[in-house]
Amino acid sequence: MPAEELIEELEALGRAARASAARLAASSTAARNQALLLLAAALRQPQPTLAEANAADVAAAQARGLDAPLVDRLRLTPAILATLAQGCEQIAALPDPVGAMTNFQRRPSGIQVGQMRVPLGCFGMVFESRPNVSIEAASLAIKSGNACILRGGSEALASNQALIALVQQSLEQAGLPRAAVQLIPSTDRAAVGWLCRATEHIDLLIPRGGKSLIERVALEAKVPVLKHLDGNCHSYVDEFADLEMALKVVDNAKTQKVSPCNATESLLVHRTVAAAFLPRLAALWAPKKLVFRACLESLPFLPGAESATEADWAEEYLDYKISVKLVGDLDEAIAHINRYGSHHTDAILTQHHGHAMRFVREVDSASVMINASTRFADGFEYGLGAEIGISTDKLHARGPVGLEGLTTYKWVVLGEGQVRQ
Amino acid sequence: MPAEELIEELEALGRAARASAARLAASSTAARNQALLLLAAALRQPQPTLAEANAADVAAAQARGLDAPLVDRLRLTPAILATLAQGCEQIAALPDPVGAMTNFQRRPSGIQVGQMRVPLGCFGMVFESRPNVSIEAASLAIKSGNACILRGGSEALASNQALIALVQQSLEQAGLPRAAVQLIPSTDRAAVGWLCRATEHIDLLIPRGGKSLIERVALEAKVPVLKHLDGNCHSYVDEFADLEMALKVVDNAKTQKVSPCNATESLLVHRTVAAAFLPRLAALWAPKKLVFRACLESLPFLPGAESATEADWAEEYLDYKISVKLVGDLDEAIAHINRYGSHHTDAILTQHHGHAMRFVREVDSASVMINASTRFADGFEYGLGAEIGISTDKLHARGPVGLEGLTTYKWVVLGEGQVRQ
Repeated sequence: MPAEELIEELEALGRAARASAARLAASSTAARNQALLLLAAALRQPQPTLAEANAADVAAAQARGLDAPLVDRLRLTPAILATLAQGCEQIAALPDPVGAMTNFQRRPSGIQVGQMRVPLGCFGMVFESRPNVSIEAASLAIKSGNACILRGGSEALASNQALIALVQQSLEQAGLPRAAVQLIPSTDRAAVGWLCRATEHIDLLIPRGGKSLIERVALEAKVPVLKHLDGNCHSYVDEFADLEMALKVVDNAKTQKVSPCNATESLLVHRTVAAAFLPRLAALWAPKKLVFRACLESLPFLPGAESATEADWAEEYLDYKISVKLVGDLDEAIAHINRYGSHHTDAILTQHHGHAMRFVREVDSASVMINASTRFADGFEYGLGAEIGISTDKLHARGPVGLEGLTTYKWVVLGEGQVRQ
Repeated sequence: MPAEELIEELEALGRAARASAARLAASSTAARNQALLLLAAALRQPQPTLAEANAADVAAAQARGLDAPLVDRLRLTPAILATLAQGCEQIAALPDPVGAMTNFQRRPSGIQVGQMRVPLGCFGMVFESRPNVSIEAASLAIKSGNACILRGGSEALASNQALIALVQQSLEQAGLPRAAVQLIPSTDRAAVGWLCRATEHIDLLIPRGGKSLIERVALEAKVPVLKHLDGNCHSYVDEFADLEMALKVVDNAKTQKVSPCNATESLLVHRTVAAAFLPRLAALWAPKKLVFRACLESLPFLPGAESATEADWAEEYLDYKISVKLVGDLDEAIAHINRYGSHHTDAILTQHHGHAMRFVREVDSASVMINASTRFADGFEYGLGAEIGISTDKLHARGPVGLEGLTTYKWVVLGEGQVRQ
């Protein structure tokens, strides 16, 4: 499609989403929940069009010689569709994040001033490969009263179109505007550029995928972006740590799963407990074949460890690998984390209350933890009920972002004829 | 100064502010309040260096032939300094916006999850002419535990330097890092460009001044911006309005002061009350020489009115001028406001509860009001105690922004050795 024609089509799509956003925002909780339950029901039924579309995507990927695991990520099996349906039902069951009027106070002028929680309007989401994401994003949009414009990976275009057709049908059956959830029908990279600049149509853009996608969006975007960059998470074993507990927690933080962003990548240990702690950890992890990248001082306590370089302190391995550094005190630990960390999630292991409080206050990260595994940094573990993403930004939403992150507030003034003096 | 040297100097200044930010964030409420009270005391004492610097700025402005009102905006009279001192004292008396730990809940895993309010880190502010703003910004930074980097107008450079010297002296006397409040000593426009791109050093940039400054910053910025664009505010007189009340409120909303952004610029009137309302309003405003820009239908009710064009509906006059349009129902009023307004502040005059609730819910503005003057949209009137600006953005902070807008939160997890299953 010629560039100009594509932009024209995207502008029309943006206007339709924006127009639907107002109707969706004003809709009842019941209607939005009904759309979600209708969508869940549709996902549980046989859908020949969807099955065909998905088979075509899978066949095309195989023909292009994509690796088997990548092809598998495209497949919408009955089990995956059932999980998506269950997700819609769970989101329907959550409390409505919009509409609450709070914090009203009567001012000396006589007016009552408070706030109402409202949808953002319309959000955009750019994601890669897995078609599941289009249902996850659409269901969060519907629940939060936001329109959304989705742009999925090219390999899953047919599947995404079939899934979004089900979404639009459910919206219509619930009396809601079908244009509230839109899929960009083009796989042209220029469409991502358009999303980045669509300040008229989009209130928030959420890139979900690899680092290069997120960096490109962050660089180009004129619209606000919810971005999730690195998770270089630390666990710090303080001199006053309960070492039994530290062993259990650090083990979980690193090895319960090594690929998530909230897995610990760097271990700081107070010098005075290194001899008692590190050899036991090395023994615990020997069967798991953990690679230690250790500072000079910690090397003697870790048989077989490799020598760490400066680059290790900033590295997000997402692998069976961990950097280890001894520190002389709490100050040094905090300074190291604030310098080399990614402000994602960091934990202290200690029984010293003052140290714990200082760590919580002074470590500049989205999540700070005392005596707990960094793996807990997650929307579901935090009780958000749903997660649209994890933010490594400081403004608007920080850390795990749930439905509330897709809302904002407006000020509401209730008067009875008051005027300003 | 050569461009490269300037950037090097700004980078050093940014690093110093960033380093101080951590110390300021960890400082006690008492120390920050003490710095504010010391600053207030200094501003109330004769300060020969400041007086000389200000006299030099004023003389230079006069020599350049600046208009008298612009020269007057530079003057730091004893009365203005006393007002600034009082502002610092008032800010010291406000509750500390940082440190509160809230919303803790015990999760099924056993961890306690909650949030702690923390400073953003370091904000930048770009402002024009009046040197007062440097003290206002510095005092809000100190109270909220943020470092700040200020860039004032070139005409007030000497005055701003003398004022910030007092701020830094007060910080030092209170045991806080003096580098936490920085003034960019260059009037080179490249310094604004640097602030826009200083993602390493700055967490939020606040442009305060004319529309062209704000648009430039919004366009160039890679750092998040708190921006305040137009205030095209509406008052809508519904068919169920109390017309006596409407007359009083609309009069105040338009004429109590015409230059602020929260003054009403456009009046919508339900067709059925136009004949009863508009002639009385015209009579009330005849002595004030209001210019009406009226739609064809409302012209007959407004003797001497001019005919409105499409452009009037989007205009922010900031003058004794108002556009008037008749509408057929509430839907039309809401649609008009959402289409032509600037999402700043809009009010309905009505005694119909359902209409009021729909207006509040469906008008997509930072402030929505029932039976109150749009002039109330203000941080002090809303009870924020201080105002760093008004945001026309939707994310992070919306409408009047107080100290809380200079903070964010972190997630805090209190564990006792819990691990993820």
